[in-house]
Amino acid sequence: MPLMKRGVLLLSGGLDSAVTGAIANADGFDLIALSISYGQRHRCELDAARDVARSLRVREHRVIELDLRGIGGSALTAEIAVPKDHDPAAGEIPVTYVPARNTIFLSLALGLAEARDARDLFIGANAVDYSGYPDCRPEFIAGFERLANLATKAGVEEGKAPASPHGDRPGFRVHAPLIALTKPEIIRRGLELGVDFSLTRSCYDPDTAGRACGHCDSCQLRLKAFAALGRNDPAPYQ
Amino acid sequence: MPLMKRGVLLLSGGLDSAVTGAIANADGFDLIALSISYGQRHRCELDAARDVARSLRVREHRVIELDLRGIGGSALTAEIAVPKDHDPAAGEIPVTYVPARNTIFLSLALGLAEARDARDLFIGANAVDYSGYPDCRPEFIAGFERLANLATKAGVEEGKAPASPHGDRPGFRVHAPLIALTKPEIIRRGLELGVDFSLTRSCYDPDTAGRACGHCDSCQLRLKAFAALGRNDPAPYQ
Repeated sequence: MPLMKRGVLLLSGGLDSAVTGAIANADGFDLIALSISYGQRHRCELDAARDVARSLRVREHRVIELDLRGIGGSALTAEIAVPKDHDPAAGEIPVTYVPARNTIFLSLALGLAEARDARDLFIGANAVDYSGYPDCRPEFIAGFERLANLATKAGVEEGKAPASPHGDRPGFRVHAPLIALTKPEIIRRGLELGVDFSLTRSCYDPDTAGRACGHCDSCQLRLKAFAALGRNDPAPYQ
Repeated sequence: MPLMKRGVLLLSGGLDSAVTGAIANADGFDLIALSISYGQRHRCELDAARDVARSLRVREHRVIELDLRGIGGSALTAEIAVPKDHDPAAGEIPVTYVPARNTIFLSLALGLAEARDARDLFIGANAVDYSGYPDCRPEFIAGFERLANLATKAGVEEGKAPASPHGDRPGFRVHAPLIALTKPEIIRRGLELGVDFSLTRSCYDPDTAGRACGHCDSCQLRLKAFAALGRNDPAPYQ
């Protein structure tokens, strides 16, 4: 039996990263989960990440504290109101955009991967529902992969080696398996892989008990997607 | 009089970032300094960063706490001994290399820059004395600049605009003005610009009073460079 490849999964507690982790597991990766506690207004996201990490049977779950409130510039980390009941598909960059968020998160995942001798990073970025976020586009993911192989000891040293007989590229790879899927397609894939969606939390503005608001962009997308599949969302709502 | 351009300076408290800040000031940038408290074993680096920030008259100094000890893999953040009195110019990647450090730091600088409407990032990376660090090479700096313009709202929106009549590239720029200088050249440039080197700290392994060891790679480089200029290093040694 071949050794399992190690991967680092960025795990938020939301639906997308849970499905991404299930896909990585199905592809034979032994996962290290990384969650970033970045001054989210709701700690329930991290509690959800812990539950999802357990359900994915990851070998290690690291939580890095990083207070992005000092940076500001986003409704998710600063005192800007989260918009309710507006059309999330209108294409503009939403106020919930956190400056350079996926660059920061992937950089931390890269550092952890190099330290743990993993070469595969997994992120639940999605270009369909979040077309307004520049760091959820395939061009960004490809750009980060190129940078990873310039930035690290492992990337530079392995970049000198020829490709393996199986055609594997040497060095780091960034996997964003949901990038081109719609939300219903993501949920369907997760259901096929046995993801327990009752553990996941997507709301931008939950109550103190961790129940979703049902009205922010993220809740609207999620509820519509479950409805499109003729399913009830098992996560708790207010 | 033209408005001053805003820049974000990664400021460590060491010699290189102090000179980088002085160069940015001389080039007419209004600076926001960013220091990362990343589980360094010595807090005196941050105290030095505060003193240097004051001497550079920055408009704002932000300190972001980021505990990289959870990542490990470096003598600077984990329990690996800092090497003493070995030849720092031997070309191998040293154990003081922190996985993905400059990628992580530039990502945070990018987030702060976008939130503060700055487009210029300054980093004291140097390829001559730190040839063993992959993230101190010009290819890495150019790669991060490309990524910055894929990763952000500002980079993507301004990337659509034509270049200005003055030939300025739109979007983000990453400046590493020390990248090709030797340590004596860096110190000479700093002396020309009035940098107070007594405020800076470079040692990997200082004592509790913040005095340098005089024997680690960083101390050796610094002491040799001052000696080459026929100067005494004004920083305190044990």
